[in-house]
Amino acid sequence: MLVKSQVKYIQSLSQKKCRDEDAVFVAEGPKLINELLIAHNIQLVQLFATDDWINSQKPTVQKEKLIAVTASELERISFLTTTNHALGLFSKPRFPNGDPNTGFSLMLDCLQDPGNLGSIIRCADWFGIKQVICSPDSADVFNPKVVQATMGSIARVNVLYTDLSGYIRKHKDMPVYAATLNGKALSELKPIEKGLLLIGNESKGIDSELLKLATQQITIPRKGEAESLNAAVATGIILSHLA
Amino acid sequence: MLVKSQVKYIQSLSQKKCRDEDAVFVAEGPKLINELLIAHNIQLVQLFATDDWINSQKPTVQKEKLIAVTASELERISFLTTTNHALGLFSKPRFPNGDPNTGFSLMLDCLQDPGNLGSIIRCADWFGIKQVICSPDSADVFNPKVVQATMGSIARVNVLYTDLSGYIRKHKDMPVYAATLNGKALSELKPIEKGLLLIGNESKGIDSELLKLATQQITIPRKGEAESLNAAVATGIILSHLA
Repeated sequence: MLVKSQVKYIQSLSQKKCRDEDAVFVAEGPKLINELLIAHNIQLVQLFATDDWINSQKPTVQKEKLIAVTASELERISFLTTTNHALGLFSKPRFPNGDPNTGFSLMLDCLQDPGNLGSIIRCADWFGIKQVICSPDSADVFNPKVVQATMGSIARVNVLYTDLSGYIRKHKDMPVYAATLNGKALSELKPIEKGLLLIGNESKGIDSELLKLATQQITIPRKGEAESLNAAVATGIILSHLA
Repeated sequence: MLVKSQVKYIQSLSQKKCRDEDAVFVAEGPKLINELLIAHNIQLVQLFATDDWINSQKPTVQKEKLIAVTASELERISFLTTTNHALGLFSKPRFPNGDPNTGFSLMLDCLQDPGNLGSIIRCADWFGIKQVICSPDSADVFNPKVVQATMGSIARVNVLYTDLSGYIRKHKDMPVYAATLNGKALSELKPIEKGLLLIGNESKGIDSELLKLATQQITIPRKGEAESLNAAVATGIILSHLA
């Protein structure tokens, strides 16, 4: 059973301030929850799940952390349009403070859309990229929508928030590739072992001062008429050629 | 000024049934609206915009179709979390009934997420693909979230809904490429002039009966640990190699 204070608390976690205070985040649905339960750097705080799911899945979770709820109770705490059997409250992983030895990292300049950020982290994980560096004004990786869109990759990719120009200046040996609309055609570039790939804001692109620090601007050749590509799609295409 | 019946009417357009009845759809924000205003196959029905925007933009729109609203009125009819100066009501374009002469088409099997569908249409437009064929149980292309995510490409890409196996059987000369997790590596394939690229549902993939009709299964080689890629990202990567 769910008490009112629990509902209120979980709802409050839609706000970054509240998530930061207790260093927790929310994840929903069996698939994602099962991925996080086996992650080394993430601890379960509380798992709210329907009886049906608990009986069929028998999750290996300490008894005091498991709270059985009805479907309608789950609806009251869920951030999804359609609830999905279980909602977990997890402790935030501690992401290391930037690893210069990581071969290839992504840099996101003011990336705003939670779905895009989640998809990009998932995509980084697919291509074996271990580090995503976000500007402080990017979406928060622990926003429930971002967590859902990572599909569990949040447990395997380090995400850090820092001033991007500062990071680039501190790691002068790293070539910086910037995704723009008038750079070198992607097809002319060879796979890269080491470097930073800079992706800009969904509508404004990369900040002009930051762009000056790029070693190479790169562009996905266009054959049709769309003005641009979705940021996550563009990131995926570039990684599939370079990573 | 906005009257109550207008607010109610526009809100009702979140439902497919209501959009279908009047063959209209909603688009928001100056960029998207300006793209649709110059589209040949789409007519403006009504434009609701703030005074500021009307005065600065002077949109070339028949006077009787333009309704000045306050920012808070716009908020009441907007489908966005943050309103964006203007909301347009447009007549649906008539998409032709499937063109077998189109070189390369996308086929979407039960694609559910509106953001994914919109991003895929935008991506098709970027790579010069003129036709996206959706199974009837896919998201509706005129859902406001899909329209926003197309960023105007909805005016340039034909989107049709039909039984996918029927379509494949009717066009036997078209090779069918299916995106799966255990097909031929994308890097081993050469660009394709003519064919159908089949993309599956976000969680269940491609229907097993439909998959039997594929000429070639293809896979994006994985280097990391993510179980899969976002459907729109995967489509973009495949198109960048094949289209």
